[in-house]
Amino acid sequence: MKSYQICCLPGDGIGPEILAQGVRVLEAVAARCGFAVRCENHAIGGVAIDATGTPLPDETLAAAEAADAVLLASVGGPRWDTTDPAAPRPEQGLLGIRKALGLYLNLRPVHVFDALVDASSLKPELVRGVDMLIVRELTGGLYFGARERIEDAPGKGVDGAPGVWCSDALEYGEGEIDRVVRFAFEAAAGRPGGHVCSVDKANVLGTSKLWRDVAERVAAENPDIPFENMLVDNCAMQLVARPAQFDVLVTENTFGDILSDEASMLTGSLGMLASASLGSGTPLFEPSHGSAPDIAGLGIANPLAQILSVALLCRHGLGEAKAADMIEAAVEQTLNDGWRTRDIAAPGTPEGCILGTDAMCDKVLERL
Amino acid sequence: MKSYQICCLPGDGIGPEILAQGVRVLEAVAARCGFAVRCENHAIGGVAIDATGTPLPDETLAAAEAADAVLLASVGGPRWDTTDPAAPRPEQGLLGIRKALGLYLNLRPVHVFDALVDASSLKPELVRGVDMLIVRELTGGLYFGARERIEDAPGKGVDGAPGVWCSDALEYGEGEIDRVVRFAFEAAAGRPGGHVCSVDKANVLGTSKLWRDVAERVAAENPDIPFENMLVDNCAMQLVARPAQFDVLVTENTFGDILSDEASMLTGSLGMLASASLGSGTPLFEPSHGSAPDIAGLGIANPLAQILSVALLCRHGLGEAKAADMIEAAVEQTLNDGWRTRDIAAPGTPEGCILGTDAMCDKVLERL
Ligand SMILES: CC(C)[C@H](C(=O)O)[C@@H](O)C(=O)O
Ligand SMILES: CC(C)[C@H](C(=O)O)[C@@H](O)C(=O)O
Repeated sequence: MKSYQICCLPGDGIGPEILAQGVRVLEAVAARCGFAVRCENHAIGGVAIDATGTPLPDETLAAAEAADAVLLASVGGPRWDTTDPAAPRPEQGLLGIRKALGLYLNLRPVHVFDALVDASSLKPELVRGVDMLIVRELTGGLYFGARERIEDAPGKGVDGAPGVWCSDALEYGEGEIDRVVRFAFEAAAGRPGGHVCSVDKANVLGTSKLWRDVAERVAAENPDIPFENMLVDNCAMQLVARPAQFDVLVTENTFGDILSDEASMLTGSLGMLASASLGSGTPLFEPSHGSAPDIAGLGIANPLAQILSVALLCRHGLGEAKAADMIEAAVEQTLNDGWRTRDIAAPGTPEGCILGTDAMCDKVLERL
Repeated sequence: MKSYQICCLPGDGIGPEILAQGVRVLEAVAARCGFAVRCENHAIGGVAIDATGTPLPDETLAAAEAADAVLLASVGGPRWDTTDPAAPRPEQGLLGIRKALGLYLNLRPVHVFDALVDASSLKPELVRGVDMLIVRELTGGLYFGARERIEDAPGKGVDGAPGVWCSDALEYGEGEIDRVVRFAFEAAAGRPGGHVCSVDKANVLGTSKLWRDVAERVAAENPDIPFENMLVDNCAMQLVARPAQFDVLVTENTFGDILSDEASMLTGSLGMLASASLGSGTPLFEPSHGSAPDIAGLGIANPLAQILSVALLCRHGLGEAKAADMIEAAVEQTLNDGWRTRDIAAPGTPEGCILGTDAMCDKVLERL
């Protein structure tokens, strides 16, 4: 029997609660599909700062490197919020592990479940059937470029006095762009009616001009896959106006962060979206949502994004496609049967159908 | 009688068609309110590149500097699209004039007209009554930082070969942030129930940490005005999920570009939104939308954003508040009476109520 080592990173806020549900589903699906998983928890984010002083302890990184896949929940919280550039932040754990594992690709499927069409803030006719894949570059761009900070820069303070001056650089080399755009085309080739939209700000930014050149070169190698460029401001608009026009969307790290969160709202709840981070090292899977500190410990967090990230883990991390299909079908069935967590319950949902974190997972398990 | 000099910049695409309507409204309102305007056209953008080789001719800049206000329509089009970093682009005319006139503040009111609630892709109950003001920093940030490009950078090409490497820097000094945040608080103080949301990515970017420090300092000086910080990805989500929560939103140049276009979709059409750019030099007023080359010359473009930018010009550029109120009331009345351009016509609108560019302006003029 195949056996996989899974490095679990519960992190902060609702992280531990939802991660536990993900593990329950993973163990159940493994038993049904005839493979074994060994899941081990390690510290990342705020809890790691509290325990060790650093958001990504060496021990955690070593465990991630040795594993077949990483299952992460979420990091961050007001407890560790600071604007002191020298202080450690939970998010550095997440950025650090992405970088250290060489995970340059982030896949965010945006799938509108039929049963949740009414939970969207958009009109149902606009979101029904929306099914796009956002491919976000994950280890370059504005997140990882050179940073500068000068405390007493002449003329940079209020009214021309000396003051603080900062810079974050958005940096890309051709190779970094090429590999994510190429992946977007491969993904589109495997999708019915697959087409690619590359998003940039080529009318202003130098890096975006390079991005567009590379995207067009890769597009020319894939003449059978319809392709377009779109400016990021226009894309932010089109996602709201006509979301169904998109299939595979590929973009820079920060643009992808913003656009994928915007797109997630089409589905009615960020609590429904999972993501896969792929590249040269151990692949990592996580919900698209954050650590929701306001509801941490209440047992009401929606576990479905975490559970769907287990499906992505099975498909892209372990090559167990059947297990992935089973999980996704069970989640869909749970929704079709009317079960909801608070965040995805449309007004008028009977109270008896609104479940907590564990009970929602129970319903999914029953349908596996 | 007071007389004002207006520098008109029709630009590209639908620009000339809509600018002409704006001038008609300006002249009409001036006559009614007892002031005079002298409007003179100058070249900017693609047409300026064609005529002079540069998107912002000296003559145009001089005319703008000498005027009381600049009324711009739109620039750009596929005809001048290029990723060659050395080639002139129409957009450089727009960025150049903003910078040269010291227009560091961009105001984008997002107002959902009651008559157009059904044209929004969001559910009517979510957008009705939305009335926010986006304050975008306009002459700093990622748009104006240092740019670098290396043609043969070692290891930066595909598979580690030499390749192109680019960098755009997001740069801010304390003073640049202070003046826009301060403006946001002043604007909020003049609004019923005014409150301020400052948007950044302080969990990752150094400039955003500085932005947040400055915003909090200014907020502390304005204890009566409710204030919050929000991460840009969350804001992109909240604008779709619960747009009515926002009043004044203040943010970095690129974030503001993306978020304001997203927010514009709440109103049902980008064709409805005007913007004012203010700072140390001649103020500039323009629609938020682009040059729409696909419908240029067809006489069907929506002139209302241009007309509403004339209202902003009267209010913020000339100090003629009564004229501004009259224009805004006339536009609102035109919509209430059922007149539409194609882009804002809900399905089922009688064909007879769908007007072209000039005819729509006629209706506004009748109601002035
Ligand atoms: C926590 C934060 C650093 C992270 C990001 O911006 O990448 C998150 O928003 C995400 O999208 O995964
Ligand atoms: C044309 C372009 C450079 C411009 C910008 O991004 O500032 C436009 O999108 C805008 O928002 O006014």
